[in-house]
Amino acid sequence: MKLSPSIEALIEALRCLPGVGPKSAQRMTLTLLERDREGAALLAQALTTALERVGRCQRCRNFTELPVCEICADPRRDQALLCVVETPADVMAIEHSGSYRGVFFVLMGHLSPIDGIGPEEIGLTELASRFHEGDLAEVILATNPTVEGETTAYYIAQQARSAGVTISKIAHGVPLGGELEFTDATTLAHALSGRTRVAEQ
Amino acid sequence: MKLSPSIEALIEALRCLPGVGPKSAQRMTLTLLERDREGAALLAQALTTALERVGRCQRCRNFTELPVCEICADPRRDQALLCVVETPADVMAIEHSGSYRGVFFVLMGHLSPIDGIGPEEIGLTELASRFHEGDLAEVILATNPTVEGETTAYYIAQQARSAGVTISKIAHGVPLGGELEFTDATTLAHALSGRTRVAEQ
Repeated sequence: MKLSPSIEALIEALRCLPGVGPKSAQRMTLTLLERDREGAALLAQALTTALERVGRCQRCRNFTELPVCEICADPRRDQALLCVVETPADVMAIEHSGSYRGVFFVLMGHLSPIDGIGPEEIGLTELASRFHEGDLAEVILATNPTVEGETTAYYIAQQARSAGVTISKIAHGVPLGGELEFTDATTLAHALSGRTRVAEQ
Repeated sequence: MKLSPSIEALIEALRCLPGVGPKSAQRMTLTLLERDREGAALLAQALTTALERVGRCQRCRNFTELPVCEICADPRRDQALLCVVETPADVMAIEHSGSYRGVFFVLMGHLSPIDGIGPEEIGLTELASRFHEGDLAEVILATNPTVEGETTAYYIAQQARSAGVTISKIAHGVPLGGELEFTDATTLAHALSGRTRVAEQ
């Protein structure tokens, strides 16, 4: 059956969203046209505005509408404490925890030579020059605990060490509220090797 | 953490899509901004175009860019055979089966008094006037086999009967490729009560 061309075009365009296949795209299109034309108009507007306004922070590479993002520009933030993460979503997660008052550096990915992503593509040259500026007290590595994330962390640790910067890594272990029985073997291995001594009372 | 306002607005706007919660909306926003700005621009354009151009067919209420949709306007279609369905997605599914050459009437919903959806809202007045035009040989009811769908079908059948139009209903039973063992009880009950006699050889 030939659908009306602008419906076909919308179904096709919705498939650029992650996790949306042909069936979901069709359902989204029909729902928008049938019941939420106002929402669809708002979405079109929000997409255009975001594309126009959102760029990268000159300091930390995170998304922002300003030349330097709000976190980097915040005088109450400890500029000597730098947390390196892979994506803006990781920044949000850490901010959400409410327990970090330093600044970030967002790689926007991880080293992946097979996909042509080397140190240059994830901003490691800029990061290295930050190390050499000499005003960093500590660099916290918070890349994902995957092979690529660990490799990236190792590479950055080498750079930081050669610049004489203190390096740390966030703890990996059994999540709070998690049960040992249902924790995977690798996480348990990390939890064991990262055990801390209990102070005597 | 305060996100940049146009990113917040985009996350919020994406939630008008069915099946998209706050986490998916955030992931979609970051992916679009990070890796698919071109796709996002196309999506904004496709939404605007579809909203401008897509309206309802004057005959069958289905989505179309024309006053009368391609199916209703097709001279090779049997205009005396009318299939009543709930949504445009049902039209697509039946068209996809390739075994129907009549026309459609799209209710865009089903009777649901609790949500304020009465006969007027799903076009039953227009449908009744089609019945009384007198050029219909058969009306096939293909609403969903849910309580609301069945109620709607019953209501339409009453209307058609009073206008003297032949009514039929699509068969419900064990789907092809389905196994009896894994077919639910209601479907099996339908399959049994709708059994057909096997011709003697």
